[in-house]
Amino acid sequence: MPDNPLQNIILLLSCPDRAGLVFRISNFIYERGGNILDLDEHVDPVEKIFFVRVLWNEKLSTLLSELEDAFRPLGEEFCASWKIRLTGLTTRIAIFVSRYDHCLLEILWRNSIGEFAVDIALIISNHNDLAPLAAQYGIPYHVFPLSGDTKEAVEQQEVALLERNAIDTVVLARYMQILSSRFVERYQGRIINIHHSFLPAFVGSSPYRQAYERGVKIIGATSHYVTEELDQGPIIAQDIIRVTHKDSLDDLVRKGRDLERLVLAKAIRLHAEHRILVNGKKTVVFD
Amino acid sequence: MPDNPLQNIILLLSCPDRAGLVFRISNFIYERGGNILDLDEHVDPVEKIFFVRVLWNEKLSTLLSELEDAFRPLGEEFCASWKIRLTGLTTRIAIFVSRYDHCLLEILWRNSIGEFAVDIALIISNHNDLAPLAAQYGIPYHVFPLSGDTKEAVEQQEVALLERNAIDTVVLARYMQILSSRFVERYQGRIINIHHSFLPAFVGSSPYRQAYERGVKIIGATSHYVTEELDQGPIIAQDIIRVTHKDSLDDLVRKGRDLERLVLAKAIRLHAEHRILVNGKKTVVFD
Amino acid sequence: MPDNPLQNIILLLSCPDRAGLVFRISNFIYERGGNILDLDEHVDPVEKIFFVRVLWNEKLSTLLSELEDAFRPLGEEFCASWKIRLTGLTTRIAIFVSRYDHCLLEILWRNSIGEFAVDIALIISNHNDLAPLAAQYGIPYHVFPLSGDTKEAVEQQEVALLERNAIDTVVLARYMQILSSRFVERYQGRIINIHHSFLPAFVGSSPYRQAYERGVKIIGATSHYVTEELDQGPIIAQDIIRVTHKDSLDDLVRKGRDLERLVLAKAIRLHAEHRILVNGKKTVVFD
Amino acid sequence: MPDNPLQNIILLLSCPDRAGLVFRISNFIYERGGNILDLDEHVDPVEKIFFVRVLWNEKLSTLLSELEDAFRPLGEEFCASWKIRLTGLTTRIAIFVSRYDHCLLEILWRNSIGEFAVDIALIISNHNDLAPLAAQYGIPYHVFPLSGDTKEAVEQQEVALLERNAIDTVVLARYMQILSSRFVERYQGRIINIHHSFLPAFVGSSPYRQAYERGVKIIGATSHYVTEELDQGPIIAQDIIRVTHKDSLDDLVRKGRDLERLVLAKAIRLHAEHRILVNGKKTVVFD
Repeated sequence: MPDNPLQNIILLLSCPDRAGLVFRISNFIYERGGNILDLDEHVDPVEKIFFVRVLWNEKLSTLLSELEDAFRPLGEEFCASWKIRLTGLTTRIAIFVSRYDHCLLEILWRNSIGEFAVDIALIISNHNDLAPLAAQYGIPYHVFPLSGDTKEAVEQQEVALLERNAIDTVVLARYMQILSSRFVERYQGRIINIHHSFLPAFVGSSPYRQAYERGVKIIGATSHYVTEELDQGPIIAQDIIRVTHKDSLDDLVRKGRDLERLVLAKAIRLHAEHRILVNGKKTVVFD
Repeated sequence: MPDNPLQNIILLLSCPDRAGLVFRISNFIYERGGNILDLDEHVDPVEKIFFVRVLWNEKLSTLLSELEDAFRPLGEEFCASWKIRLTGLTTRIAIFVSRYDHCLLEILWRNSIGEFAVDIALIISNHNDLAPLAAQYGIPYHVFPLSGDTKEAVEQQEVALLERNAIDTVVLARYMQILSSRFVERYQGRIINIHHSFLPAFVGSSPYRQAYERGVKIIGATSHYVTEELDQGPIIAQDIIRVTHKDSLDDLVRKGRDLERLVLAKAIRLHAEHRILVNGKKTVVFD
Repeated sequence: MPDNPLQNIILLLSCPDRAGLVFRISNFIYERGGNILDLDEHVDPVEKIFFVRVLWNEKLSTLLSELEDAFRPLGEEFCASWKIRLTGLTTRIAIFVSRYDHCLLEILWRNSIGEFAVDIALIISNHNDLAPLAAQYGIPYHVFPLSGDTKEAVEQQEVALLERNAIDTVVLARYMQILSSRFVERYQGRIINIHHSFLPAFVGSSPYRQAYERGVKIIGATSHYVTEELDQGPIIAQDIIRVTHKDSLDDLVRKGRDLERLVLAKAIRLHAEHRILVNGKKTVVFD
Repeated sequence: MPDNPLQNIILLLSCPDRAGLVFRISNFIYERGGNILDLDEHVDPVEKIFFVRVLWNEKLSTLLSELEDAFRPLGEEFCASWKIRLTGLTTRIAIFVSRYDHCLLEILWRNSIGEFAVDIALIISNHNDLAPLAAQYGIPYHVFPLSGDTKEAVEQQEVALLERNAIDTVVLARYMQILSSRFVERYQGRIINIHHSFLPAFVGSSPYRQAYERGVKIIGATSHYVTEELDQGPIIAQDIIRVTHKDSLDDLVRKGRDLERLVLAKAIRLHAEHRILVNGKKTVVFD
């Protein structure tokens, strides 16, 4: 129907549970002439909180702001936290890296073949090492060398750069620096990290060394939203791989690399497709 | 609220996809004063079929037949295939076994600790071997020795026994006989089998031997609904375990036993909780 | 060859690494007329320790003590820690349980179908609950009710019972009491525990609750040798299963049960087949 | 010891089983002053064939041909199939590709960070698409457009190119053409393919479509040596990933891509480290 193109719309909403929520939301969509393509809901049985993700399509004639205005009364009635997204508008992300290339390559390649609904606006690093890789994929690469006394100043420059580029989400692709509370606060729920262990095991630095010394038979990787407390943010995705006494520390690092890049990629995809709702210290993931 | 107890109700429905289905169904529930506890839906993007499972609660005052009468107009309008179940009413099952005890023990034990919403009414076997195990769990055990010329007659007796006991679902727990088309037809979509391979690999007999001889590095087990074509029914659940050149055929059998009982148990749980809808040769599993 | 039956012999040995170890050991076997059926070796590249497990057969004519005398000079020359076992002599074990039946049932059933090379001599519990299950499998069941002021006295009675029954290995099958240092010392490297988490995550009590509250996407189970430090002993086996936001705390417990019994069973099998060597805080597992 | 550098040597051997094989081989090494770093052996209990991989080091003073001459009498005595490799000499490989980039990128990247002990001499394709990727990693890229009537001639040119470049092993990285029997014969046991299914399920073309239509709950990938019979060669490595009714055919392709590249990479690593022995239609993999 060339004269009646459709647009896909996503609603993410959480609110105190009560009767009639699905009915009221589906009614809202039905009255607009929309057709629900996908609906996932969950009720936290302990906290009595309702979570829903609805994907529907309707005629391409509405601005996002009009949609938001239309839904606002319902949101207020439900005392809900909610957001509406048009699926055509991709999430603008910035990637922070240090020296390891595997996570960055994974993200750039997946994006290049169309796996992600993201727009990689820029890469920030404290090292030059990965500039050639960024260049291969045509992504601007900004180096901010770090030294103790200028850390705060550097971060301010970084934030300014992110602001100028209208960055929505920051991805830490094995970025080896700790962000300030101020930075974390500003991008709350929008900073995705990959930690190279099966959290909460092996918090902090050198998790592969910790795992090697503990003699575990399985290692893991964890992608999570960054909060002020180190490695304590809501977990988005985890995966594991088996190891044996034959595996050296280098083998753990090698095997772990494969986990890290797959788990981080999964988290980015879920985030970009608006499939994640934060529930306190945890996540609801509608995969 | 002792004077106003609630009951949980499940609707399983599939129909041609169209706009407004979730709205109409949630409206039906809302108008009855019900509260949706869980809703899963899926649209087959190729066949354009809508599948939904809704769990809601409402005041305990209605008979199942009244609920069905109330919903029937909607079901007819949608040209839907549907069923309604009260979660308090457990599924009555019969288990068919031959000589292996691992799947039977698994089912009896899980049921004894309350994992399954099933009522194991009886066990049927072509051998005496597992009678003591049945006795330990207090389940009637019926032996029907099989010989070629009486196979049809034996099956008729078995069906009569199932009918007398109002059996809803038949579980083949490593039952080594092939059921007749007539039997399969009668219990269509209600016979659950466990096949000791990762279907469609190694159809038919001796799948572990086939796997050993092929030299696979992973073996599996598959639970599926039985249809007339051997090992071709809709798959409910599958799982795998790794093997190496060190594993003998006996090791494959040993490792496979663990898969078989876990996969079969999972399929029974999903079936008993009304989480499975058949979609042609495939299943939609709302886990 | 009825007049020349063979016996299988296992040597487990660890010593400082040096050239010629495999040659010398295989020479020892060759000169006895033995034939190596299986040989696994490992060198810890950091600590420079050599580990080996050799399975060979030779004519059934030698007592274990004669074999040990024959090997002793080599063991002393290598400054080795070693033991020799005849595969026909099964390990005598005692199982400690509290109220959960799943691990006990798993062990008793596997033993009944010949999966384990163990002799389950007795079961000890602080509760009566599992006496009927023990009776089904014909294993003596001893109840030692625990109260704070008699804990030490009770443990002394338990040790006396173990000694009288020549128990080699103690299996804690979800035994909810902490053993004294004295007990742990006496059965060093011969107490196998199952911990219901992916250690080192969620040490201590209520690991499923901890996992639920942390919002992990994967849960695990860990079997390890018991040492004085709680949940810090050398890990033998681990496994995991995926969970989602849909899983309640009860679901975690249910899913975890399957892990616990499989992981504990695996650890018992490995131990009974003399496939484990302890390497400081870690294990070498020749599976 | 700068004046006494060491070299690592690998022996891969298979022969009819008999007593004393480990002793004789370790004696051979001991008498040369070598130190065994790693020894894996396996006896096929059905076919009574002995397989061994030994890694040892000794003083760097011997040519490979001298080593081979020294070992030949033992090899002949054992009626063995064997080869000796110096670990410093990397395997020269050629990669065949069509249009998909994921497997090629994976191999090139892993090689660039030193994961593989291979020398990627050249890439052959029937399309131009991946020439830029090859250029990024500095690998010569040769295009041989295929058309039915010239297939044989094209293959002859390809073989000539492989010969000129002293290629040892051919990797088919989602190469969509079938090689001739003549080609397969020439590189027997040295052509590694990745098949995008869990073989033997879904042999032939469009395995993801077959999997989608069959409604499996798990998909897989298989790396194997190529033999004349399509998709029937000895399996080197397999892995799987779970899918649900929510996954479209495109989702299966996306998830499968991750399997394909990891499984193929694993197979290449195992092959390049001389960890694989072919046992009829199967493999012995000393990982």
